[in-house]
Amino acid sequence: LRSIDQIIQINYRYSIHFTSRLFQDENPLLLDVLHCDQALTPMKVLCVLDETLLYHHPQLSKDIQLYCMHNSACIDLCSTPIVIQGGEASKNDPKYVTMLQEAIHQYGICRHSYVMAVGGGALLDMVGYAAATAHRGVRLIRVPTTVLSQNDSGVGIKNSVNAFGKKNFLGTFAPPSVVLNDAHFLTTLPMRDWRSGIAEAVKVALLKDCLFFEFLEENAARLMDRDMQVMSKLIYRCAQLHLEHIATNGDPFESGSSRPLDFGHWAAHKLEQLSQYSLRHGEAVAIGIALDATYAYLMDLLPAHDWQRILQLFSALGLAVYANELSNYLSSPDHPDCILAGLQEFREHLGGRLTIPLITSIGHSIEVNAIDTNVMMKSIELLRQYHTIHEESIS
Amino acid sequence: LRSIDQIIQINYRYSIHFTSRLFQDENPLLLDVLHCDQALTPMKVLCVLDETLLYHHPQLSKDIQLYCMHNSACIDLCSTPIVIQGGEASKNDPKYVTMLQEAIHQYGICRHSYVMAVGGGALLDMVGYAAATAHRGVRLIRVPTTVLSQNDSGVGIKNSVNAFGKKNFLGTFAPPSVVLNDAHFLTTLPMRDWRSGIAEAVKVALLKDCLFFEFLEENAARLMDRDMQVMSKLIYRCAQLHLEHIATNGDPFESGSSRPLDFGHWAAHKLEQLSQYSLRHGEAVAIGIALDATYAYLMDLLPAHDWQRILQLFSALGLAVYANELSNYLSSPDHPDCILAGLQEFREHLGGRLTIPLITSIGHSIEVNAIDTNVMMKSIELLRQYHTIHEESIS
Repeated sequence: LRSIDQIIQINYRYSIHFTSRLFQDENPLLLDVLHCDQALTPMKVLCVLDETLLYHHPQLSKDIQLYCMHNSACIDLCSTPIVIQGGEASKNDPKYVTMLQEAIHQYGICRHSYVMAVGGGALLDMVGYAAATAHRGVRLIRVPTTVLSQNDSGVGIKNSVNAFGKKNFLGTFAPPSVVLNDAHFLTTLPMRDWRSGIAEAVKVALLKDCLFFEFLEENAARLMDRDMQVMSKLIYRCAQLHLEHIATNGDPFESGSSRPLDFGHWAAHKLEQLSQYSLRHGEAVAIGIALDATYAYLMDLLPAHDWQRILQLFSALGLAVYANELSNYLSSPDHPDCILAGLQEFREHLGGRLTIPLITSIGHSIEVNAIDTNVMMKSIELLRQYHTIHEESIS
Repeated sequence: LRSIDQIIQINYRYSIHFTSRLFQDENPLLLDVLHCDQALTPMKVLCVLDETLLYHHPQLSKDIQLYCMHNSACIDLCSTPIVIQGGEASKNDPKYVTMLQEAIHQYGICRHSYVMAVGGGALLDMVGYAAATAHRGVRLIRVPTTVLSQNDSGVGIKNSVNAFGKKNFLGTFAPPSVVLNDAHFLTTLPMRDWRSGIAEAVKVALLKDCLFFEFLEENAARLMDRDMQVMSKLIYRCAQLHLEHIATNGDPFESGSSRPLDFGHWAAHKLEQLSQYSLRHGEAVAIGIALDATYAYLMDLLPAHDWQRILQLFSALGLAVYANELSNYLSSPDHPDCILAGLQEFREHLGGRLTIPLITSIGHSIEVNAIDTNVMMKSIELLRQYHTIHEESIS
């Protein structure tokens, strides 16, 4: 009997919208994206809120309930919003995923109903995983509320939780139905989150867009003054570059060995874990980028001037380029708590050959399949020195 | 800021191969499909075996280990095969999924390594779910060992486990890397499993292929004599029709309301649950098909002659068209243990409008969006009478 060979093609379509004060009565965006005008019955929505957000927006849960009540012909909010602690805590404890899957069961959410997640990137990752696995995937509305989630993770097609001590070990690729970026949430973000989210903008600029890097250099001071106009532009350009990459790179579900958007991320993921998640993802990414840029410089791949511009931009943005965890166990590179173990873990998560993106100039990247660990250790030492001098010059 | 709208296209490709005695030394199929000749290092494989299979093939685990040892330049079997109880038990207890995800973590299985599942449809569903969620999806080789899994679930693109009392509540759409149908495993299948797997062949013939239905009618006696040649043809045609459907129906991941392959399945899923899984999936499907065919007949959608041919074919195949669970709580149709509750559960799992496939003649189907519960209750009563008379005539 001859074998049967089949190609199956799937098309996903989703959009990212930009707004402010999404849940204020006069804002029609949510009704528009739910296509309520075409529905015979109200759209069922199960809402999940990031607890961290409620400190600054204590009225949010009530606002959402009122919004849905005033539009009850269109939206059927099937319970009061479920509030879950945000940050990595929600990805580390499996009980949250189970709790949400059970809520989807209990409230009769189907593949044509919606789960709406409002919060930071970690919460969106966790809720996305629950939504993608219940009924083999119910519709997901993401309302990212941090710089990092609005410009990076929240606009992408992944979800995940941590397991067995590994970041993002469990997850799926599952494009959201729609992403709603609400700028108002950024105004109440703690400075540390505001700043750290910018690291992913630096990353995507370094990989793909020299002019965007110049924009960041020119506007670093304004960004530190929390200029909302500059931040809006930053987020828009990041989202644009991110989606363009997913749609055109030829491997959106990452079945190959290459993952060009993960510049600096092998070290970043390991640093987050080693710091027991006291480092924010963006903070760890800034260090990871600085590290791989330094490595590229020492390997004569990246001109010294470009390397210096990168470190200077991080300084101007108030982002450290070194953390003590970088130097832990560096004398025993095989120790699982040595930063270098992150290389193997990164390869394993992705699969196939080790493939690390590096930059050769601002806006241009290559991929390498081996890392010289001696040069990497020198890069860490160089960053440590830079950091020490820089800290001293501040104080 | 204008919204960003993006289309993302994914292409999957997989093949189904037909063989006998896959793990005998001289059989090259496994090496061929792993493309071992192109790999620089041996392909890492984590193997999971269905315990039920080992009763009839006690040497299987050793055979697999020897096969991999003799081909160690190509295959790196990273542990002795993991043996798990097959059947719905493996889908009902969440510990098995967690155990496999942990094994994938522990043995360093990456997106370019393989999980190979050998067993019946339930085990393949469960292993597939674990493989699809670890690292956002590692490669899966399915070796289905029952009629039902070789002709239906094992060649499709779904995986799942049961949760919160609902069949297949958790799962993903994730095409396997490759499916290897080994005919030898069918020779040792208990008669009950041999027979019940044929129900899905009747289903796909009724929906899509009148000539295939005639083939089943003509060969019913040979099938009951366990003629392997007829069974091979049956499985091949089913697999062909199944894949053709997935690739060409325009909605492989079932985002719409229509699910034409699920003829008879609203009742079948509910019957399995009501019988506490003492009914095999195929047995429940036979009853579900008979029920919806009877309903179509009573609704004047299906000619009497076609209806009778269907019931007669099930008789000739030794498949009952009635189970007592059909009549439970029929006087209180809103009771959750009434078979009619299956309609709402089916709608909810799929989402959107209730959409039930029915047949109008052998080989032709339509979809209806409402079911007349009075007529459905009459259909149950008619089947009960048919069953009683038929049972009496046998004894």
